[in-house]
Amino acid sequence: MHIDVITVQPDLLESPLSHSIMKRAQEKGLLSVQLHNLRKWALNKYGQVDDYQFGGGAGMVMMCEPLVNAIEALQKEHTFDEIIYMTPDGARFDQKAANGLSLKGNLLIICGHYKGIDERIREHYVTREISIGDYVLSGGELAAAVVIDAIGRLLPGVLGDETSALTDSFQDDLLAPPVYTRPAEFNGWPVPEVLLSGNPKLIDEWRYNQALERTRQRRPDLLDEQ
Amino acid sequence: MHIDVITVQPDLLESPLSHSIMKRAQEKGLLSVQLHNLRKWALNKYGQVDDYQFGGGAGMVMMCEPLVNAIEALQKEHTFDEIIYMTPDGARFDQKAANGLSLKGNLLIICGHYKGIDERIREHYVTREISIGDYVLSGGELAAAVVIDAIGRLLPGVLGDETSALTDSFQDDLLAPPVYTRPAEFNGWPVPEVLLSGNPKLIDEWRYNQALERTRQRRPDLLDEQ
Repeated sequence: MHIDVITVQPDLLESPLSHSIMKRAQEKGLLSVQLHNLRKWALNKYGQVDDYQFGGGAGMVMMCEPLVNAIEALQKEHTFDEIIYMTPDGARFDQKAANGLSLKGNLLIICGHYKGIDERIREHYVTREISIGDYVLSGGELAAAVVIDAIGRLLPGVLGDETSALTDSFQDDLLAPPVYTRPAEFNGWPVPEVLLSGNPKLIDEWRYNQALERTRQRRPDLLDEQ
Repeated sequence: MHIDVITVQPDLLESPLSHSIMKRAQEKGLLSVQLHNLRKWALNKYGQVDDYQFGGGAGMVMMCEPLVNAIEALQKEHTFDEIIYMTPDGARFDQKAANGLSLKGNLLIICGHYKGIDERIREHYVTREISIGDYVLSGGELAAAVVIDAIGRLLPGVLGDETSALTDSFQDDLLAPPVYTRPAEFNGWPVPEVLLSGNPKLIDEWRYNQALERTRQRRPDLLDEQ
């Protein structure tokens, strides 16, 4: 899978993409992520990519022309399955969306900054708008990192043990059950006895019931969706 | 505001915290964020902080002892308003939660990795569990970066123009209206005439209606909550 990212803050994305599982995914050749500084396509020698918004008000808006030039230059190198704009008013990202996107070949992600991008780019170029949650961030960069991480770890071969992703929260519309590791008693707090029983059937049953109970208590909406 | 972060991947968080608005917040002395490598409190010279989970199954679990030692060491330096664990089965983070947390003085954020942390830490130490959305990430680090960014930009004095945050999506339970900047016509696509009218009353009215219409179409659930 190949992902191009258009941003005014490529440095901000550097460390999340060069550590841990994202690093491994790229080293194994399973994922390539290329960061593009929008200023490369700036209108003038001052690197201008934004301007005041029409109608007045606080906050700058990212201009059409640099974005169009960036998108069209990258389209010459890749045929994108989706041109994604990260924005809090986009469709809410969830595990199903991550699963779906992990099957694509080429993605282009545009990170907004300031007040966002000129609406005309959203209308005429963007094919999908994604929000990672109902909150506002300084820019789309962290949101893009979240999407790339959520997708990247699902690519076959990225995680050491495939089953590790399959038993995560949300893959079966349930939250994950509690987990415990050694010691069996810490500070007077024991782990549930069943986990020490060595009986796989009882353990599976306990885990399923715990997952169901936790979902009922914390996120009954996930059960309604089924 | 001071935030301590316990993580096994401090390097991963480096660039998001040292650029753009987060950089400015720290330089202005409005926010201090300190990353702590959990391995500092590891059990042995191999830096062990995780172990296999009781009951079997894929994925490692972060052990009690290093976490407790880390938490208690940091508690000697700060009295935390909240000890937060980033986890997909936590309460969903939203702008209201960001507003609330931005009023606190000291926060401790624990980033999970692998399968998560031993449940006993969640029961006995953690005061608040936060999820940034219904998807699974490689670890809690990006989630912590998202929360810190969302909170940090709300601290008075961090954003250049205070009104910039007040007109963001979600602050009034509405999505933001479309924004446009120069040129007034690009590629044959004009900006809405009202924005060029110079009439603040008409422009405010248009923006409110656009915000309402966009929220109706994309996120009717936000209107139901009012």
